[in-house]
Amino acid sequence: MTIEQQVQTRLNSLTKPPGSLGRLEEIALRYCLIRNQPMPKLKSKAMYVFCADHGVVAEGVSSYPQEVTRQMVSNFISGGAAINVLCRHYNITQVIVDVGVCGEVVPGAVAHKLGQGTRNMAKEPAMTSRQANDGLAFGRQLATAAAAAYDVVGLGEMGIGNTTSAAAILAAYAGCDVADAVGPGAGLDRKALAHKTEVVRRTLELHRPHRSNGIELLEAVGGFEIAAIAGFLLGAYEVRLPVVLDGFPCSAAALIARAMQPNVLETAFFSHLSQEPGHRVLFDLLQVRPYCDFDMRLGEGTGAAIMIGLIDASLHLYREMATFEEAQVSTESEPG
Amino acid sequence: MTIEQQVQTRLNSLTKPPGSLGRLEEIALRYCLIRNQPMPKLKSKAMYVFCADHGVVAEGVSSYPQEVTRQMVSNFISGGAAINVLCRHYNITQVIVDVGVCGEVVPGAVAHKLGQGTRNMAKEPAMTSRQANDGLAFGRQLATAAAAAYDVVGLGEMGIGNTTSAAAILAAYAGCDVADAVGPGAGLDRKALAHKTEVVRRTLELHRPHRSNGIELLEAVGGFEIAAIAGFLLGAYEVRLPVVLDGFPCSAAALIARAMQPNVLETAFFSHLSQEPGHRVLFDLLQVRPYCDFDMRLGEGTGAAIMIGLIDASLHLYREMATFEEAQVSTESEPG
Repeated sequence: MTIEQQVQTRLNSLTKPPGSLGRLEEIALRYCLIRNQPMPKLKSKAMYVFCADHGVVAEGVSSYPQEVTRQMVSNFISGGAAINVLCRHYNITQVIVDVGVCGEVVPGAVAHKLGQGTRNMAKEPAMTSRQANDGLAFGRQLATAAAAAYDVVGLGEMGIGNTTSAAAILAAYAGCDVADAVGPGAGLDRKALAHKTEVVRRTLELHRPHRSNGIELLEAVGGFEIAAIAGFLLGAYEVRLPVVLDGFPCSAAALIARAMQPNVLETAFFSHLSQEPGHRVLFDLLQVRPYCDFDMRLGEGTGAAIMIGLIDASLHLYREMATFEEAQVSTESEPG
Repeated sequence: MTIEQQVQTRLNSLTKPPGSLGRLEEIALRYCLIRNQPMPKLKSKAMYVFCADHGVVAEGVSSYPQEVTRQMVSNFISGGAAINVLCRHYNITQVIVDVGVCGEVVPGAVAHKLGQGTRNMAKEPAMTSRQANDGLAFGRQLATAAAAAYDVVGLGEMGIGNTTSAAAILAAYAGCDVADAVGPGAGLDRKALAHKTEVVRRTLELHRPHRSNGIELLEAVGGFEIAAIAGFLLGAYEVRLPVVLDGFPCSAAALIARAMQPNVLETAFFSHLSQEPGHRVLFDLLQVRPYCDFDMRLGEGTGAAIMIGLIDASLHLYREMATFEEAQVSTESEPG
């Protein structure tokens, strides 16, 4: 029997109507297929939060000042952010990665600074091709190392301005109207949202990156954290490490990775649908149905942490439930 | 300040854009309002699984034989069912309640048998008004006792045939087409589904229960577990104990309770939208938006257990996140 047949046989032997755990069964099956194991277990779970700054904030595209990125990195290190609470709650090891936050490295963060934030993409390319390749290689290397230590890795991000970069990537990749890709991010009002949309439109007209070229997309409108996440996804695909994507910027990184390796999403779980409107456009494009829909729009990996909790629950059900035979429960019969 | 103002002030002071945790913030706020406490904690959690048999299975409305109810009670007691796995995973104490399973009480279950299953509602009233009142009173009494020991209680059920009872309650209460209320339950094919629909239609024509009379609904087309769950909801409302409802039969019990006390759902969380089509009709009727949508259709309290995990996560976030002041993070500013 193939792994898929073995897993499906076991799922159908458990004391429940076949398929009645719905998407929890689908999650368990997908996890087993990624691992190519009939009885896998989540012994250790990690959350990598990639942090970087964005030069485009000079255009006034965010409702928070740029220094909030670094302040939040400190908050992650001292354990006061939402993602810290969720990682403690779900027993997930947290790794904070600084790939280009402005200022000194906060002690406790894993640092591989590609720069002091990207450049302002509305005026020049966000990064050099060397930086883009460096970010991808670093992410890939982290994934390879993570695979030796963890059974699942969540990917989150922090970077004031990064929904602007994500929207530009989505609009370029999908060829959709810029207005459909841009959203309020951390909390813009309608006027500021119109301005952000205009900035993204102008930026894409300036660079005209080719949708199928991941490096070109990163150079023109990317972010350092987005490059590293894309690299992590590519590395995870190569070593069959299950990864869980958080919100809109992570999903934009998935588009970059997919432009470089069409099958990369085989080893990835999308987690939740965020309130950022471009996220739905992106999910529709990839025909993804989110697992959770909680109107969240925080990032950091918060949606991915909840999803890791669900994967854990799914695998516990798969491993620990009694079979009909073990529990001496009668199976389905013809009614009447 | 009112509790609501206190909670909202704290939520907005936490290091995240206001409202960016979406429905997790809504869950924390609702929990605080139910408890009338500004800083509540889930110290202990319970899951009550109400089990009973249904005489209407004689009509061939289920794909599983009646003895499966009692076999599954044994499975619950020995820890092999889906709900056991989830309760262990989320650290929820499990209480199995037999309110009318056919046969002897399984050792380990809390027993208050209202009968050896209901009578066949397609031919006569499912129960006497005395049984209905007894079930309600017992459920109410359990809720009062539970409030002294637990900070949240999930309500689940097991009873072969109980989606037939739930569908009849929904159709009577909502006045909707019987075909919209009836679904495949544990797994009927199309022909068997048509037969189940016909049985429910015939049953309702026989009894014509009044939609606003909870006792009359229970007598005509109820189930013992549904009566006890309705009673539990009424008791929980009186003592401000937060309860979490599982799938379709539990939601039908909520209709009964609501017919008796219009505000009863103030202290209740619906959890997930099950695949049983009547569940969506019921949610539309009550204008409920489910928290989870995993295509589940198992019952037992499985969806409620996942929801309790989410309530727990929400309250951890609410209690443990740092404020902007504590973390020295800059707050929102005008962009530009």
